[in-house]
Amino acid sequence: MRSRTVIFISDGTGITAETLGNGLLSQFEGVDFQHVRLPFIDSMEKAAQCQQRITAIGRHDGIRPLVIMTMMNTEIATVLRTSDALILDLFEAFIAPLEQELNTRSTHTAGRLHGHSTREYANRIEAMNFALAHDDGISAAKLKQADVILVGVSRSGKTPTCLYLSLQFGLKAANYPLIPEDFERGRFPDTLLPFRDKLYGLTIAPEQLQRIRHERKPNSKYSSLENCRYEVAAAENLMDKSNITYFDMTARSIEEIAVRLLQTLKRE
Amino acid sequence: MRSRTVIFISDGTGITAETLGNGLLSQFEGVDFQHVRLPFIDSMEKAAQCQQRITAIGRHDGIRPLVIMTMMNTEIATVLRTSDALILDLFEAFIAPLEQELNTRSTHTAGRLHGHSTREYANRIEAMNFALAHDDGISAAKLKQADVILVGVSRSGKTPTCLYLSLQFGLKAANYPLIPEDFERGRFPDTLLPFRDKLYGLTIAPEQLQRIRHERKPNSKYSSLENCRYEVAAAENLMDKSNITYFDMTARSIEEIAVRLLQTLKRE
Repeated sequence: MRSRTVIFISDGTGITAETLGNGLLSQFEGVDFQHVRLPFIDSMEKAAQCQQRITAIGRHDGIRPLVIMTMMNTEIATVLRTSDALILDLFEAFIAPLEQELNTRSTHTAGRLHGHSTREYANRIEAMNFALAHDDGISAAKLKQADVILVGVSRSGKTPTCLYLSLQFGLKAANYPLIPEDFERGRFPDTLLPFRDKLYGLTIAPEQLQRIRHERKPNSKYSSLENCRYEVAAAENLMDKSNITYFDMTARSIEEIAVRLLQTLKRE
Repeated sequence: MRSRTVIFISDGTGITAETLGNGLLSQFEGVDFQHVRLPFIDSMEKAAQCQQRITAIGRHDGIRPLVIMTMMNTEIATVLRTSDALILDLFEAFIAPLEQELNTRSTHTAGRLHGHSTREYANRIEAMNFALAHDDGISAAKLKQADVILVGVSRSGKTPTCLYLSLQFGLKAANYPLIPEDFERGRFPDTLLPFRDKLYGLTIAPEQLQRIRHERKPNSKYSSLENCRYEVAAAENLMDKSNITYFDMTARSIEEIAVRLLQTLKRE
């Protein structure tokens, strides 16, 4: 397989450049991309070092590298654009049409890439602490504060989904694990009933659940395929009966489930 | 302040479109951007509904909206591009130059935006579970498995940073809270000593620490400014003496600290 170096450059963290870059590069098969990250390039001196690095990589590889950059500082961007590489400048391509459309000059302020205000950021951290505080159990008083309460069998993905919802969207997400007691009772516990309108469920294929549980507790009843089948069927049955919207984690990423849940929330 | 609607459209989650879009829009002051998310637009039927929505928003606002999109499916993208909006197509702009440079046709496969392989994804989830399992304490046997061990006083941001490192980069990050016992002893506990090469620290301004702790335990010794000053100074002193690299969380986001830590890791 051909190999090619891709350099992600930013005056911020470079996370956006790399995320979008990964999406672009995943469209090309048969090339083995070698990632190099050069974040926080926020001075002319660092830009010069960057250029030397780009040249050295090109010489080493025998072919010019790809550069994917999000650079707020136009002065630094202009220097970097003279490098011997294919330059994909995510900002340059879009700032000009936006300036024209909005009839406003952009501020070209570095370090604003995440676009988060301090308040938004504090909300995300608060939401994350909320999700963590609710991971071990559920306090009835605090359920009231939750924006969303996720139910599902153990290891169906509730905790990662809650954490992602908090870190990405600032949503306060609590989770309640469905256990055999709930299935025998045939309904959600009384503590959850007042909050029916913010209950959402997760489900998962029993085979995948077995694999996940097996890593945690090998050869236990808990991780047996038979038990996983029973729990998943009972949980789905309970959620159907209670008319709870639920999402199938099988073959879906947490990101996708989180966005689908957000969409459902907004519609309802 | 002027108001303008921005619509994020994707055949995936749209998270990349929104992240990059937020960065672009943060460059424009004096405009109040109203966000609309339209993810999972993966059929011609949904594209048609999208267009109606765009038209309706334009009519309601009295001005055409901005559309920021990451669309793998070129057929759907072509339809959407005829909408009455300023269209910023993050993929269109870059796929063509990449095809030329790599001398390969892109696959135009939808749903690949995150570019994560199943293995990579499993690593991220495993790392997240690792971070969570280590939040309450530290088991000596498991410290060995950690890629990174973060130390710092209570509420200095260790847990959010560990979780971000796991979710974004798949790093196994454990954390160890520095407590008065450690300061009195004047060195790290013996359990940590074998892992000195993967210890990194966090610090924070005492005033900010006080605010964070105050929300959790108001008017306690724990949250008093005097105690916060003592703990932060003692922790920094300990980290200096042990020659541990540490990062100042004050006025920095978790994303930034995580990327800086990753850089330091790679250099060392």
